[in-house]
Amino acid sequence: MPDNFADRLLAVSEQKNSALMVGIDPQYERIPAEIRTAATAQHGDGLEARAEAARQFGYAVIDIVADQVVGVKPQSAYFEAFGPAGVAAYADVLDYAHQAGLLVVADVKRGDIGSTDAAYAEAYLGDGPAGARPFAADALTVSPYLGRDAIEPFVTLARQTGRGLFVLVRTSNPSAGDVQDVGNDSPVYLRVAQMLHTMGQALLGKQGYTSLGAVVGATYPDDVARLRVVMPNALFLLPGFGAQGATAEMVAAAFDKDGRGGIVPASRSILYAGEGQTDWRGAISEATLTANEQINAVRLRR
Amino acid sequence: MPDNFADRLLAVSEQKNSALMVGIDPQYERIPAEIRTAATAQHGDGLEARAEAARQFGYAVIDIVADQVVGVKPQSAYFEAFGPAGVAAYADVLDYAHQAGLLVVADVKRGDIGSTDAAYAEAYLGDGPAGARPFAADALTVSPYLGRDAIEPFVTLARQTGRGLFVLVRTSNPSAGDVQDVGNDSPVYLRVAQMLHTMGQALLGKQGYTSLGAVVGATYPDDVARLRVVMPNALFLLPGFGAQGATAEMVAAAFDKDGRGGIVPASRSILYAGEGQTDWRGAISEATLTANEQINAVRLRR
Repeated sequence: MPDNFADRLLAVSEQKNSALMVGIDPQYERIPAEIRTAATAQHGDGLEARAEAARQFGYAVIDIVADQVVGVKPQSAYFEAFGPAGVAAYADVLDYAHQAGLLVVADVKRGDIGSTDAAYAEAYLGDGPAGARPFAADALTVSPYLGRDAIEPFVTLARQTGRGLFVLVRTSNPSAGDVQDVGNDSPVYLRVAQMLHTMGQALLGKQGYTSLGAVVGATYPDDVARLRVVMPNALFLLPGFGAQGATAEMVAAAFDKDGRGGIVPASRSILYAGEGQTDWRGAISEATLTANEQINAVRLRR
Repeated sequence: MPDNFADRLLAVSEQKNSALMVGIDPQYERIPAEIRTAATAQHGDGLEARAEAARQFGYAVIDIVADQVVGVKPQSAYFEAFGPAGVAAYADVLDYAHQAGLLVVADVKRGDIGSTDAAYAEAYLGDGPAGARPFAADALTVSPYLGRDAIEPFVTLARQTGRGLFVLVRTSNPSAGDVQDVGNDSPVYLRVAQMLHTMGQALLGKQGYTSLGAVVGATYPDDVARLRVVMPNALFLLPGFGAQGATAEMVAAAFDKDGRGGIVPASRSILYAGEGQTDWRGAISEATLTANEQINAVRLRR
């Protein structure tokens, strides 16, 4: 049986003294000009050039942050926007992050009926035929709109391969409540949380956390606290820190007394910290250091 | 302003006398042996060979069904399972279907926060830089777990490009109710339907239907009828016919008095109708003919 994802994540977090994960969201217009210029010189002005710029920006970010953070969370949407060449770049960025010793969460928010989800599970958590993985993620994000069927195939394969998943429970966006708050006494997000808590016992690691994690928006701090009670064993992926306005203080309730249990992704606030500057690499490194300090100040405060 | 997706779909449906859409779900082990053998001879035994088999099977299915059906609905999961090469095959299958005069629904079930969804919208509904589309779909499927934010970017771009979307309302799988039925008096699926009905007015075509469609599982016929009342202008994509057990009778309520308003996708019951047989092409053609007749008997019954 391969090592449990939750155990691996907690080990890397402790070793690096970080609960930060850098989101890789390459919006073409915001990629440093030197990278875009080189890609255009090589590939012209279409999707291939954009995909190459996304790849090179992803590599550069990984080089800069690798020693400081738990892992990276490349966002598939920004790569799919560049077509098949973009998706090839996505796979390369996942591989590159692994080679840099980082954990990799594929932020793809997949979710479908059971038979189809088995294929998505193969894509992101499977070992692939002849040892070639389709997309080399350690975990992926999953949407629960279709209910338990949409989650089970991922749990089954995660158990076999020692990988993990983060299911959307309470998202960070303004209209999160349109669906997630329906049901006064027992709203959707709490029901999903209860279901995941039960299912997650199948992926429990040696350190008390399960590889069936939850996406819990840092922008809703009261819900972070409420969900921590319902899901005591779940790793929380806590988007919303930085560009979406959440502070480190707002995720405090996600962490246990040893500062474990929460992973804070930050994307735009780090990637584009040096936008338009010559020393964008230094700005990314600085922003990463600051974010780490802010999060550690909260999670390690006893 | 380009032609409205709903208008285009209704025109093709009338011209071909069909409300059937063939789902392209290439499960590797079920692809005809002659196609797998040829792909393996060319590419060995890994992801490239599987991707090539999926591409060639997709092309073959399109050749067989093109004259009989409204369009195709290639399921991204089965292509993503073959890695970046699989996604390249996916894009090629979309292109090939267009060249065959078919409408193309990319079944990808994407859905994220607004800024990220704008990238997904670009990927599937955008015109792309330098005239090269990332993925040449006419419409895509979208998941509403994140609420209105997750839908708006698609509506905005669909309006500009004359394309469309089908948002999950009531899915066809057994555990659909885990999330969708929450909220006794006013459950999630009805609230999503009401929200979509309002939003859909922005994409209304000349024939009274909107390009903001809904996915409504044929396996829940009572809900098909209930949702038709709430969403009188929405095209319904009605999965569940065939392999999932729904009959043509179960989607009757989706159609108006002129036999319009519903699109019935069928995947496994058509694709694998001739599984293991030498004349699998003939079996696919026959299954398509039968499905068309069954659906037309119900939708044109007046």
